Amino acid sequence: FQSKLPNSTASIFSVMTALAVKHQAINLSQGFPDYAVDPQLTDLISKYLQQGFNQYAPMAGMPALREQISAKFKRVHDLDIHADSEITVTAGATQALFTVMSAVIHAGDEVIVFEPAYDSYAVTIELLGGKVVPIRLTAPDYRIDWQEVASKVNARTRLIIVNNPNNPTGKVLSADDVAQLAQVIQNSNALLLSDEVYEHLVYDGIAPQTVLSHPLLRERAFVVASFGKLLHATGWKIGYCVAAPQLMAEFRKVHQYNVFSVHTPTQLAIAEYLEDAEHYLNLPTFFQQKRDYLVEALQHSRFEVAQSQGTYFLNLNYRAISDKPEQEFAVELIEKHGIATIPIAAFYHDGHNQQYLRLCFAKKQETLEQAVQVLQQI
Amino acid sequence: FQSKLPNSTASIFSVMTALAVKHQAINLSQGFPDYAVDPQLTDLISKYLQQGFNQYAPMAGMPALREQISAKFKRVHDLDIHADSEITVTAGATQALFTVMSAVIHAGDEVIVFEPAYDSYAVTIELLGGKVVPIRLTAPDYRIDWQEVASKVNARTRLIIVNNPNNPTGKVLSADDVAQLAQVIQNSNALLLSDEVYEHLVYDGIAPQTVLSHPLLRERAFVVASFGKLLHATGWKIGYCVAAPQLMAEFRKVHQYNVFSVHTPTQLAIAEYLEDAEHYLNLPTFFQQKRDYLVEALQHSRFEVAQSQGTYFLNLNYRAISDKPEQEFAVELIEKHGIATIPIAAFYHDGHNQQYLRLCFAKKQETLEQAVQVLQQI
Ligand SMILES: CSCCC(=O)C(=O)O
Ligand SMILES: CSCCC(=O)C(=O)O
Repeated sequence: FQSKLPNSTASIFSVMTALAVKHQAINLSQGFPDYAVDPQLTDLISKYLQQGFNQYAPMAGMPALREQISAKFKRVHDLDIHADSEITVTAGATQALFTVMSAVIHAGDEVIVFEPAYDSYAVTIELLGGKVVPIRLTAPDYRIDWQEVASKVNARTRLIIVNNPNNPTGKVLSADDVAQLAQVIQNSNALLLSDEVYEHLVYDGIAPQTVLSHPLLRERAFVVASFGKLLHATGWKIGYCVAAPQLMAEFRKVHQYNVFSVHTPTQLAIAEYLEDAEHYLNLPTFFQQKRDYLVEALQHSRFEVAQSQGTYFLNLNYRAISDKPEQEFAVELIEKHGIATIPIAAFYHDGHNQQYLRLCFAKKQETLEQAVQVLQQI
Repeated sequence: FQSKLPNSTASIFSVMTALAVKHQAINLSQGFPDYAVDPQLTDLISKYLQQGFNQYAPMAGMPALREQISAKFKRVHDLDIHADSEITVTAGATQALFTVMSAVIHAGDEVIVFEPAYDSYAVTIELLGGKVVPIRLTAPDYRIDWQEVASKVNARTRLIIVNNPNNPTGKVLSADDVAQLAQVIQNSNALLLSDEVYEHLVYDGIAPQTVLSHPLLRERAFVVASFGKLLHATGWKIGYCVAAPQLMAEFRKVHQYNVFSVHTPTQLAIAEYLEDAEHYLNLPTFFQQKRDYLVEALQHSRFEVAQSQGTYFLNLNYRAISDKPEQEFAVELIEKHGIATIPIAAFYHDGHNQQYLRLCFAKKQETLEQAVQVLQQI
């Protein structure tokens, strides 16, 4: 039997969380909150469970939820997104990403991926017989050289993938970046896949942004988002994909036979919960407080804190402490100090090492304080 | 933009349910129950929601649920299935099917599919660049000619797909069928994908069966199953895949980047609920009563009832009533008589017409009585 993915192993997130559990470490590795979900929201799920909404949702998602997603685009971005023809609810953002790639990448197609990159992109492209064309961005500013990007686009370029705000760097695309991206797309046959799962987690007064605000990208982009991140509940695995009708039709051809539909009572609960926009408009304040606490506290450590404009991740440089490579230092941090993080090298196909570790700050204050106490001693 | 699935349209189940809703018809088309889920089970989900189990499950599924699945195999089939290395929890059986096919079908591979076949198989194979090799079985007995099967196997045959008990025919494979199937697999390089979502819905004293009971198939088969069917809750989209460790490793390489994990509190609730085996051991009695009611009542109609040994579907031949093709007659049944069914022709790639319609009997007695009243008058 010939494996289609001979080199694929357990994801870095599974590995680090398993190590964290094994060593009872403070787990700042895999990105998930350690505090409670709003009880109003879990009560809503219970309500719909009891009311008997337990059979198949429509393939594209519950209409009420698609309407709320559409309303959110109107309110936040003043965009008209059609709930029927342009939105599909998915089994998490990961399934949306996989489905977009499955729907558009033909064998032999090239896909431009900016590294550091979320690990699912490259493996999925490889599975589909596509070719990853990595563009390496480097710490601390991870600046994109758009001429380099343009030079890598050719007739075989099917897709460009961006992740904005970026996991793991916490960078947000500038207006100029988006304009240049649109230019590249315009001069090519490529489509855009914009992973916007951290859309609402932006700080220092930065407004949430979507590539769909750009008229050309509105026609050429698939946008993927996550209720796990929006509602602090990564375990429910509900997200969505947005695209112009013709692209969405292709997405649904695959979605229909990949998962068909998504947990009905949870969809209904989220729809009702989103009626109150405060539930997502307050996210920047909520998370910035956590970020600021960590940034400030780690001034009093030997780690150097990189800037995080968005996501719930913060990167630390440890060159003042150790010259070990990231993977090795990360394991040592778990085993010796009881703190689990993610090596940034895991987001580069060639393990490019820059002595940075990623911390997830979607944690209760108590957890952050415990982590700070340890990190300040290292 | 070149579509990867130029001919794919909305699934027959979505189409018929939408028509049923539009015409306020009794919906016996798409397979889902119209009665309440056991409140004990929905209460368990609420409990785990409230207790805060709302973050990522492990990629392979919650250990407690995998243990219960393993225990079910031991109890029902006296098989030792290893919870860690041989079971993965999925976002419904559809996602398990899609993931198996994605993991093993290389472009150019041939896949043998018995028709009538569930609609996801062929589209998924096509998406992956595989070639569907259909074997047409025909009403009323849908007998498999194993010599024909053997003659269609060649060096490119990667996979054989069976669905047992079969949707839409209600047929269960005989011991001889399984032995012949194993023989074919043994003489080839092919793997087996056995869609056993209706495993526990078998009647007239037939015992639940799995291909994993056959020693050779134990090593060469992926088995896919569905809690939606087992627990009367098709809207939760939780199923699982079972395979020998080496095959399961390949499955997980794709699963990890397709959906990563599945609704955590629902997994935990199902695990606790399955501790009482009565919850699935009573399924044959529960459904046989519904089947028998329909079979008996429709003796007093002009429809001819085909035998159903399993699943929650029953097929009716209408040759005494009309000579219209199935699709046309099914639409007429909705529009004129308010009963939605599924044309069996939709399960053949070439729309092979035999004047049969499929009825779902996973309905409360009241619904079945209403349907009978209408069907007896036609
Ligand atoms: C699906 S596990 C990965 C979670 C996550 O988004 C991250 O930690 O980067
Ligand atoms: C995923 S919709 C199809 C439901 C079903 O299994 C059927 O009706 O055959």
